[in-house]
Amino acid sequence: MQVITSIKEMQQITSTLHTKGYSIGFVPTMGYLHEGHLTLMNEARKENDIVVLSIFVNPLQFGPNEDYETYPRDFKRDENLAEEAGVDFLFYPSVEEMYPNKLTVTVKVLDRVDVLCGKSRIGHFDGVATVLIKLFSIVSPNRAYFGMKDAQQVAVVDGLIHDFNLPIELVSVPTVREEDGLAKSSRNIRLTPSERSEAVHLYQSLQLAKQFIDNGERNPDILVQKMKSYLQNHTSGWIDYIEIYSYPELKKLDQLKGKIIIALAVKFSQVRLIDNLILEME
Amino acid sequence: MQVITSIKEMQQITSTLHTKGYSIGFVPTMGYLHEGHLTLMNEARKENDIVVLSIFVNPLQFGPNEDYETYPRDFKRDENLAEEAGVDFLFYPSVEEMYPNKLTVTVKVLDRVDVLCGKSRIGHFDGVATVLIKLFSIVSPNRAYFGMKDAQQVAVVDGLIHDFNLPIELVSVPTVREEDGLAKSSRNIRLTPSERSEAVHLYQSLQLAKQFIDNGERNPDILVQKMKSYLQNHTSGWIDYIEIYSYPELKKLDQLKGKIIIALAVKFSQVRLIDNLILEME
Repeated sequence: MQVITSIKEMQQITSTLHTKGYSIGFVPTMGYLHEGHLTLMNEARKENDIVVLSIFVNPLQFGPNEDYETYPRDFKRDENLAEEAGVDFLFYPSVEEMYPNKLTVTVKVLDRVDVLCGKSRIGHFDGVATVLIKLFSIVSPNRAYFGMKDAQQVAVVDGLIHDFNLPIELVSVPTVREEDGLAKSSRNIRLTPSERSEAVHLYQSLQLAKQFIDNGERNPDILVQKMKSYLQNHTSGWIDYIEIYSYPELKKLDQLKGKIIIALAVKFSQVRLIDNLILEME
Repeated sequence: MQVITSIKEMQQITSTLHTKGYSIGFVPTMGYLHEGHLTLMNEARKENDIVVLSIFVNPLQFGPNEDYETYPRDFKRDENLAEEAGVDFLFYPSVEEMYPNKLTVTVKVLDRVDVLCGKSRIGHFDGVATVLIKLFSIVSPNRAYFGMKDAQQVAVVDGLIHDFNLPIELVSVPTVREEDGLAKSSRNIRLTPSERSEAVHLYQSLQLAKQFIDNGERNPDILVQKMKSYLQNHTSGWIDYIEIYSYPELKKLDQLKGKIIIALAVKFSQVRLIDNLILEME
């Protein structure tokens, strides 16, 4: 595995790879890799000749009161994990390399962002889309891999790739969970022990909603209310949102039908966790 | 020459060309080709294995009171000119092909747009940058060719390519002029005969400024004033702007130095014309 920190060098490498007819699978991450990321790398490994992993904590997608400074970082550990997972190139640029001067252009996300995390994280998805346009230009992947834990991000990337005609296949990979159901996340280490044991109830509340749906409930408001009561009774966290939409359009539904997302965000003392369930209704 | 109207087909062709190691030169236009465009095609022909011309009158870059509907179009003539110029692929998509649904993302130009044409054409350069991201993704050029008549557009594209790390070389080509100095433009046909004879003074006013600069004048306000008087005395047109900036940053200068642009826009009865001069000062 080669670690590349220069944009120009990375571009030369991927350009040469394409000339040779190799396909490139790309896993963009912010590092502090966990099994969720490993699953993405494994998928990329199966479907492509070359796997590129990027590690870049992107300041653009953090709000002024968010955790950019304290976002967990451990490059040596990540490097070893990437090597073991069969990554060919680890792209690891500095902030100065990615943003040498004030941007004269940005990507603005117009749709799919006035709900879920986008509602409270103003500009977050503009930052995500902007760094992705850059990373896609640098890595020039045939396929890009994203975890469904960040389902709204997947929806935004789906729009980005489609609307800008990027010649990239979006591959979304199911959320990887701990044994008790908690979605894997780099931020989970910030849970206190008692919060960690409560956190299982985020997943449980999604399962509760699924049970009601399996039993015929189609009213999103009732489902949200059930989940809210459940979470209030079982966790000390503050509920940021519980929302149900069509997926990936993220539009409100009066009655559930088609492909839907049930998503939630709960704030604990040191960390805000998100989780979701995608269901296909008849 | 092959005419391609499908995005998917164009992408397959350019992808195959890259696999074969061919370089692609790209000339994006809105059609109604004139010698300015032909110069771009000739340059592209000299420097690349394959030349792709696009013709697409992009609704996104026209304001509600601008001339999208009446913008001159003549595809048959353009097709012949492109063929004669040695174009290999003419990409000619419909509006429905380029914008099948409302965009979920757009490019927003943050800098270099609060001056010159950007001041009166709100959102124009967002539309230009957005269609270019799409066209660049579709054509995947090694080099893209733009005329210096639209100097602000070249400055914006320079920012777009640099800031999004697009693996494309921007080639800017000097303005092509009529014998009397009028910059070639698809819109010149909308001048009345008397306006046409006046229009030479746009170029003359730029030459006047150059003369003063050659004689040592370095104060932009004085130069603008000289040009304004000259244009008011020699044309019936309404002066939209006369401005002088650093180039390509388009920042105000107290004293002229480095690379600068002197630019103007004048409105005649049926058409608004622009012109500019780029100078390198010691």
